[in-house]
Amino acid sequence: MKVHAKELEQFVIETLTKVGISETDARTTAEVLVTTDTWGTFTHGVKNLRGYVRRIKGGGIRTRAVPKVVAEGPAWALVDGDSALGMITSTLAMRTAMAKAKNSGIGYAGVRNSCHFGAAGYYAVMAVKEDMIGIAMCNDVPSVTAPGARGPVLGSNPFAFAVPAGKEKPIILDMATSTVAGGKVFAAAALEKKIPDHWVVDADGLPTTDPTGYPHTGALTPMAGHKGYGFALFIETLSGVLTGAAITQHVLSWSFDDPSLRTGHGAAFIAIDVKAMMSGDKFKQRVDQMIQELHELPKAKGSERIFLPGEMEWERREKAFVDGIELPEDVIMSLRALGEEVGLDVNRILR
Amino acid sequence: MKVHAKELEQFVIETLTKVGISETDARTTAEVLVTTDTWGTFTHGVKNLRGYVRRIKGGGIRTRAVPKVVAEGPAWALVDGDSALGMITSTLAMRTAMAKAKNSGIGYAGVRNSCHFGAAGYYAVMAVKEDMIGIAMCNDVPSVTAPGARGPVLGSNPFAFAVPAGKEKPIILDMATSTVAGGKVFAAAALEKKIPDHWVVDADGLPTTDPTGYPHTGALTPMAGHKGYGFALFIETLSGVLTGAAITQHVLSWSFDDPSLRTGHGAAFIAIDVKAMMSGDKFKQRVDQMIQELHELPKAKGSERIFLPGEMEWERREKAFVDGIELPEDVIMSLRALGEEVGLDVNRILR
Repeated sequence: MKVHAKELEQFVIETLTKVGISETDARTTAEVLVTTDTWGTFTHGVKNLRGYVRRIKGGGIRTRAVPKVVAEGPAWALVDGDSALGMITSTLAMRTAMAKAKNSGIGYAGVRNSCHFGAAGYYAVMAVKEDMIGIAMCNDVPSVTAPGARGPVLGSNPFAFAVPAGKEKPIILDMATSTVAGGKVFAAAALEKKIPDHWVVDADGLPTTDPTGYPHTGALTPMAGHKGYGFALFIETLSGVLTGAAITQHVLSWSFDDPSLRTGHGAAFIAIDVKAMMSGDKFKQRVDQMIQELHELPKAKGSERIFLPGEMEWERREKAFVDGIELPEDVIMSLRALGEEVGLDVNRILR
Repeated sequence: MKVHAKELEQFVIETLTKVGISETDARTTAEVLVTTDTWGTFTHGVKNLRGYVRRIKGGGIRTRAVPKVVAEGPAWALVDGDSALGMITSTLAMRTAMAKAKNSGIGYAGVRNSCHFGAAGYYAVMAVKEDMIGIAMCNDVPSVTAPGARGPVLGSNPFAFAVPAGKEKPIILDMATSTVAGGKVFAAAALEKKIPDHWVVDADGLPTTDPTGYPHTGALTPMAGHKGYGFALFIETLSGVLTGAAITQHVLSWSFDDPSLRTGHGAAFIAIDVKAMMSGDKFKQRVDQMIQELHELPKAKGSERIFLPGEMEWERREKAFVDGIELPEDVIMSLRALGEEVGLDVNRILR
């Protein structure tokens, strides 16, 4: 079923204001979630609104929270999220990093007392709109194991970056540091299928092709083995250790843990103002040249295109504005259940 | 065969001064290369000195080069390497990033007109010595393919970070963005062994278990598929696009291409002064706590330890100072050949 982006945003705003979020904060959150859905990243869009609302009702996400900059210097800031919705704190932090970058060339904003922030890529793209390179990352409740360990060690700690281009589309990469998303393992379990032996480990910490143990006894594997584990620690350091946020086993799950508890998530945002270092036009021309050269390279047998990171997402977004967003069944189910819980009819926006 | 670190450094210094490098620059280079060997990262240590010397003699690395900061702002700088040895330009750039971080909290230094800089981890660790988080990365001649492409698309673009700790060892990760190093493929080819089907692609850009096509017709695969490809583009952007360096297909090989040519490598260094954001002691205590908690997690069946990134390298380094560095055969062969070429007897330092 399809939905117009604007109508979906309106549904998100109405839902959030019904549970006590201010209109301004509801608009910000709707913009983050629906942009994510226009990219086709449905795992991190409005599907999760039901979970956020549960946590708002429980008190673990605070409706009257006021995230703010609690310490700052010429090129850095620390933001305390006051347990607001992660999107509110994260947009504030990315804007702060951009303001620092505008004055200093580069800016870092670290975040503590946040919650799940949705898709990291959204915040990286905020920087692109002002001809900056954007970087976003966060820690999360452990779900990914480490070489030599059994059970979860680190979160799926995502990393996103975005680079402004001229005639070409901005480059965006938004990746978890696990080999695959937990959702892929659940999907295989639901279909009673085996999985490749490098996706999860079993209760002994050993490779398995059985998806049913995750997440109760097993854990996801880090992407590229020790490299992904190490890179996730880098993200944990900038998002958690340096910010005063909860780290590793001390971060709670925004979806599974008691909704009255604050999750303690940390995050980190970096903006680099390319205009400090060369003209924005020259930079974007260099990015365009790189993109065009990559597009023109010889293709693998059976391949018709070499995609830049984010290229598929931008194409889906253009299509979504023309045809509407084609929501997958699991997203619609989540929205319907949410609609019942808050007393809003989601059918009026689905066609 | 074994060698003392100090004697190996002296050999590097003598070699480089013999081919026209200043004593100061030779010392810096020796420190980078021998530190790398003490970590056991023999692929990036003195083994490569012979190749650097060939390029110095050819003129592609300039003996009288003067790398310098050519543009700067409060938290950033651009360094032109003037085609010096990559280690000279890179240590200058990391020191510059650290000076910027000291004043602003975070500092970025981009590099152009550099050459192969050895192990990225060395520069990241420079920051740790002043209680800063260090990040180092560079681009390189393409050797790694991209999803949908045939042949090399991007360099093995390494990324390193280092984090200061208190009682524990600093965390260091130094990783290429390819699945495996080219050296592993060459080693399998030399032994006439097959390789796992996700290490390289063949002339059609398709997976192969035959190592013999690389690098002439095939290419390495990016780590974790599209994630490693995307992350390598991030490194290309900060190291090459933003710095004015050569990018992708325009970077030359420091070892294979005509030694009279300048390779045009770019690099990027970021330092974050944790002391701007919290006391250095508090930060290091938080890092120690994270490390200790990771160490104490349940082990996988058959595993006795959970290693932090860099932990094995620090243990090897301690052992190297006690017992000497145990150089592998390929490193000794390279040193012997180099000794003959420059008229120095390497046997006097081997025991």
